[in-house]
Amino acid sequence: MDIAVIGAGAMGSAIAMRLVENGAKVLTYLEGRSATTIDRAKSAGMEVVGLDAIAGAGLILSIVPPAAAIGVAEQIAAAVRRRGTKTTFMDCNAISPQTMVQVASIFASDCGVVLDGSIIGGPPKPGQKGPKLYVSGDAANSSAMLAERGLQVRRIDGPIGAASALKMCYAGINKGVTGLGTAMLLAAIRSGADEALKRELQESLPDLDAKFVQGIPDMYPKAYRWVAEMEEISDFLGEDDPAALIFKGMAGLYRKMADDREDGGVLAGQLDKLNNGG
Amino acid sequence: MDIAVIGAGAMGSAIAMRLVENGAKVLTYLEGRSATTIDRAKSAGMEVVGLDAIAGAGLILSIVPPAAAIGVAEQIAAAVRRRGTKTTFMDCNAISPQTMVQVASIFASDCGVVLDGSIIGGPPKPGQKGPKLYVSGDAANSSAMLAERGLQVRRIDGPIGAASALKMCYAGINKGVTGLGTAMLLAAIRSGADEALKRELQESLPDLDAKFVQGIPDMYPKAYRWVAEMEEISDFLGEDDPAALIFKGMAGLYRKMADDREDGGVLAGQLDKLNNGG
Repeated sequence: MDIAVIGAGAMGSAIAMRLVENGAKVLTYLEGRSATTIDRAKSAGMEVVGLDAIAGAGLILSIVPPAAAIGVAEQIAAAVRRRGTKTTFMDCNAISPQTMVQVASIFASDCGVVLDGSIIGGPPKPGQKGPKLYVSGDAANSSAMLAERGLQVRRIDGPIGAASALKMCYAGINKGVTGLGTAMLLAAIRSGADEALKRELQESLPDLDAKFVQGIPDMYPKAYRWVAEMEEISDFLGEDDPAALIFKGMAGLYRKMADDREDGGVLAGQLDKLNNGG
Repeated sequence: MDIAVIGAGAMGSAIAMRLVENGAKVLTYLEGRSATTIDRAKSAGMEVVGLDAIAGAGLILSIVPPAAAIGVAEQIAAAVRRRGTKTTFMDCNAISPQTMVQVASIFASDCGVVLDGSIIGGPPKPGQKGPKLYVSGDAANSSAMLAERGLQVRRIDGPIGAASALKMCYAGINKGVTGLGTAMLLAAIRSGADEALKRELQESLPDLDAKFVQGIPDMYPKAYRWVAEMEEISDFLGEDDPAALIFKGMAGLYRKMADDREDGGVLAGQLDKLNNGG
């Protein structure tokens, strides 16, 4: 059975390569994509096809930026309806459970089965187990074929939305901690308290200090993507949860870091200087 | 030279006891305080006196909840002015640099010298080095007498405000991380993703998981105090900093946890159950 992967970014192409290495035929659709993306897809062993062939795959994975998730679901659902066959569609994106329910309603039962997937960890690398693909709403164990083809799959005993919620919660902690460190180190730099703070962190919170030293520089090039992810987490928590505001603030912080990168990285330079010992 | 400590809470009384054990005479003023507080002060070896005697001490430490800091500065400044002598006043509270500048203007040069202090770490315990007392604006090294009497003092080479900024930044990270964990574990519980999240944290972020297991239950009885501290951090960051919003959200979250405690601790019970393995 063929597998289709929509999205040949860093994650999508690496997942596809892992599947190909384990004997799968992996299709993708790249209409309107850049030459770089097309090259990346081909290097990963993906076969570039039209939408009708995608609709004919037994399992379709959507691995795209959160803001593109709904559009992909609409495009695939339309292609499946035109073709008149059924398939299984797994949204693997960092979207809220509410957005996932929307995806499921777009890809309704006349198109086949929808699964809620979410990916925790970085893209697969040679010799490493790679990220975990969490799946919920998978009563028929359709994800088994991915596990058989080299992916680390973990089924959650829960409905559509549970895997998305897991991703929101994990990202809220992981990227939230990086955001807290970024915000407070910048404030300490502004206030002349940076060296004392750095020393105090090294002494009393060494694990967090180590996470900042690695995680803050890793964040700069991703900050623009994390803005939408933080807004998605805020929506997930909902207006009744005071913590929703925390992630509105995180979105603003990451927007500031994305702008800083475009403007030459002045703030990033200050953070790096402090983290590398002044 | 006598030392006065205003505030005989857990921190103030333990700091006083450490000073007394190291040969200092420690005065305090407890007008209108509860019998419990008066007992605590006496057990710590503090000598309960009137405001005029406090004003005559060579060094006065203010160790009170953030919301009380301004009131204490006003009360002490008035007593010092009535007495017509000068002293040194160190505000050790978790207040923003802006509030610290306000304290300094209340306790103006006609009253003596103001120092900016901040305490990082829990109250001193027998056999342990205890918290660090950071001090800025201390050109004359007036804090040396505290170091000689058993406190761990660290001077910051910066003006009034630098020690307060350090405390804001450190608390923002330390209590912010606890807040992120609390918010996301509660969201995971609501969404049926709690067991998967707990396992994922144990596997990929074990240091943070350990911090949550210890830090979240420690927080419940302090949550009501942390509300004001988070608001103070938000004010410190200021409206131009998008991260100010993060701490408005944190204040709301800790208010929720404080309310939960008053209402019987339903949320706390859910968190404990998850952290203790279901």
